[in-house]
Amino acid sequence: MLSTVPAAASVLLARTPARAAAQPGPTAGWLAPFQTDVQRLIDASVGSTAAWDRLAELCDTFGGRLTGSRNLELASDWAADTMRKDGLEQVRLQKTLGPRWVRGAESLEIVTPVPSPLVMLGLGGSIATPEAGVTAPLVVVRSFDELNTRSSEIPGTIVLFDVPYTGYGPTVAYRANGAINAARHGAVAVLVRSVGPMGLRTPHTGGMSYLQGTPRIPAAAIPIEDAQRLARLVARRVPVTLRLRMSAQTLPDVESANVIGEIVGREHPEEIVLVGGHFDSWDPAGGASDDGVGCIVTWEAARLMKVLGLRPRRTVRVVLFTNEENGLRGALAYRDAYIESASKHVLALESDIGVFEPMRLGFSGNDRARQMMAEAVDLLRPLGFPPLGPGGGGADIGPIAQVGQVPAMALAGDPTKYFQIHHSPADTVERIDPKEMAKAAAGIAVVSWIAAEMDTPLPR
Amino acid sequence: MLSTVPAAASVLLARTPARAAAQPGPTAGWLAPFQTDVQRLIDASVGSTAAWDRLAELCDTFGGRLTGSRNLELASDWAADTMRKDGLEQVRLQKTLGPRWVRGAESLEIVTPVPSPLVMLGLGGSIATPEAGVTAPLVVVRSFDELNTRSSEIPGTIVLFDVPYTGYGPTVAYRANGAINAARHGAVAVLVRSVGPMGLRTPHTGGMSYLQGTPRIPAAAIPIEDAQRLARLVARRVPVTLRLRMSAQTLPDVESANVIGEIVGREHPEEIVLVGGHFDSWDPAGGASDDGVGCIVTWEAARLMKVLGLRPRRTVRVVLFTNEENGLRGALAYRDAYIESASKHVLALESDIGVFEPMRLGFSGNDRARQMMAEAVDLLRPLGFPPLGPGGGGADIGPIAQVGQVPAMALAGDPTKYFQIHHSPADTVERIDPKEMAKAAAGIAVVSWIAAEMDTPLPR
Repeated sequence: MLSTVPAAASVLLARTPARAAAQPGPTAGWLAPFQTDVQRLIDASVGSTAAWDRLAELCDTFGGRLTGSRNLELASDWAADTMRKDGLEQVRLQKTLGPRWVRGAESLEIVTPVPSPLVMLGLGGSIATPEAGVTAPLVVVRSFDELNTRSSEIPGTIVLFDVPYTGYGPTVAYRANGAINAARHGAVAVLVRSVGPMGLRTPHTGGMSYLQGTPRIPAAAIPIEDAQRLARLVARRVPVTLRLRMSAQTLPDVESANVIGEIVGREHPEEIVLVGGHFDSWDPAGGASDDGVGCIVTWEAARLMKVLGLRPRRTVRVVLFTNEENGLRGALAYRDAYIESASKHVLALESDIGVFEPMRLGFSGNDRARQMMAEAVDLLRPLGFPPLGPGGGGADIGPIAQVGQVPAMALAGDPTKYFQIHHSPADTVERIDPKEMAKAAAGIAVVSWIAAEMDTPLPR
Repeated sequence: MLSTVPAAASVLLARTPARAAAQPGPTAGWLAPFQTDVQRLIDASVGSTAAWDRLAELCDTFGGRLTGSRNLELASDWAADTMRKDGLEQVRLQKTLGPRWVRGAESLEIVTPVPSPLVMLGLGGSIATPEAGVTAPLVVVRSFDELNTRSSEIPGTIVLFDVPYTGYGPTVAYRANGAINAARHGAVAVLVRSVGPMGLRTPHTGGMSYLQGTPRIPAAAIPIEDAQRLARLVARRVPVTLRLRMSAQTLPDVESANVIGEIVGREHPEEIVLVGGHFDSWDPAGGASDDGVGCIVTWEAARLMKVLGLRPRRTVRVVLFTNEENGLRGALAYRDAYIESASKHVLALESDIGVFEPMRLGFSGNDRARQMMAEAVDLLRPLGFPPLGPGGGGADIGPIAQVGQVPAMALAGDPTKYFQIHHSPADTVERIDPKEMAKAAAGIAVVSWIAAEMDTPLPR
């Protein structure tokens, strides 16, 4: 299920023959003038490991890049420097304040029936426990409904939401709102079964919320195996006591930044094709897939244009957003800074669901624009891209797109592979295939080139 | 690649119809009288989740069972009690002293270029670092040869053996002897790339050795991803400094025990068919596959005979050995206690390589005995067992088998699936399929029944 790649950064992929990659599907007439450059972009990307090598350098050097960390700050400086070396223009750090949550030491253990450590990851934003930890009886529930039904059992307990993963949407509510709901019934701490498919004792962290007026209780995720172990013990009517220790802290906001680089448009520099991902990550790993890869493949799209000497009619702007994971401050800062030019954004494209095959491009916008981008995406059929899907947009481009009614695209990989490692220690570059990265970069380069180069902006 | 099973202990498998399971292959004449009881043993096992449920109870309740831990002691008491409830006879704890290594708090982090925590597991038997840790430059080598070649670079460094996994045999030498070799060249600590296939940031611990006269240095395993990350950094000529902190302790030996239960033979109680696995495990998980499952399927073989009222001519003795992982004290204590009756052991069978399909039975002994056991194993063809292979024996039955020249068998599962989780936090019952456990138990029940019931003991 997991793609693995050789260790060496100098991976050489079999180069797809240019001829084989050069046979696009039936092409709408308006795209004929783009054919040559589209092919050059594809050829420059396919067979190159440049994007994968850069992602590996990012993740290897800086590790996890949680907002407010020195790791993210140093990584942002590196990204700006490297964009400059690539020849991108107007490279800048767009400063904003970001939250600073620090995990600290943490542990979870069975106290009775027999002491035994469990695997856990505190949820982002959680408060700490007292220094000695919280020691309390365990109650296992499978839903908010069951919690409500068993309300009288909850006071003074640690509640585990042992909710089987049926997709991110249906189960993430327990991670996000588990603490609020458990605290309402008097729980002293909350555990959630990790939101993702079965791994190898793999915990998945992520954001969580508190609610004014409801007690704040510590919150952590545990792997599926640990959740099932606890659930089986309880099903055998074994009383279980747990001890949770967390020393997490929310410190004052600190400066963070979106990293921005451009290829300035030759005719309409004020018109923007925005492409990007988010540069912050959770802390247990380098965030290769969430969302280092989205940053690097969108950046790579602009780098490919630069390498090929392609300067489009409009500006292609790469934005590596900060703080998608726990605040969206980067997206909001971008919207606020560029609110006057929101309607000058002719297209916004976000990559934040990985590049695992099968991947596809999605679009949100009016019918005529959709038709045109569908025709553009047809040029990617030789690379294996399916027809343009629905579902353009994303968390980071959302605010500016909403203000400017900007046509929006998304590059999305296979969600099962993505959520297998999402927010976990396993989100490393080993999961990512250089060929899939090269393909993603080619796809983004082609659609952003076309949107930046077409005669008149995409209709909206 | 990994089998997963439903959470509930009450898993009900589709029962294989007795008729379908009742068609053994061509059978040697001497086995004809066994046919009915062989079929009863198979029918009682296939379709039952009793073995899986018991394994889950063991792992859920007691967790990791490292020699010298209270967890192992309590689990051994539970096993003896439960054997008695099963109706096994002569149930006893055969006491012996065992080593007591305690992991303690431990961590590994990149200090430069940018601070970043790594995943690690100290190796069993390692000494601690000073309380502040060992902070030193990293040198990455791919072999002992490379270490020798680069000897002058080693003093004062932390050496990483980044050795790709090519099977357990070829690579485990780096875990076992890495500390000795690195210390000889002046290293202050040693790291080994985990011995196993790529996981999900999965560290694998295991035993390691020191050598009199060579400095003892701390030793830990890191996941493949962390090893590759460090190797890539170094390949980019980035100087890397690491800090390793370990507080491991080797405490005085403590009492431990083999757990023994029997079905006493009706004609030759002094003649023994020995079946078993090892009951200790490494500490990061419950040791479901290494070797809880081997204990439970051999125990289950005896339980099935008891349930069916089958009392063989000779004694079937189940031994759950202690301390296979880091000392073999249980195996040696068994040999020493039963040395007088070593030659009365007519067969010894060990299960310690999992029950992952494809699994097979192997035999070591003389040709006539092999021929007979091959014919017995042919009775298992309807269950999917292949013909009897070579390679009987195992670490725990080895000492008594050697003294008594005992014909030896092994049940061995797919080694790739086994080593995927071996000695790692992922060695949980979720990896194990109840159907595969039932099949393993049936296979062991049949061959041990035949060996215990045949007219004259297996030739040796």
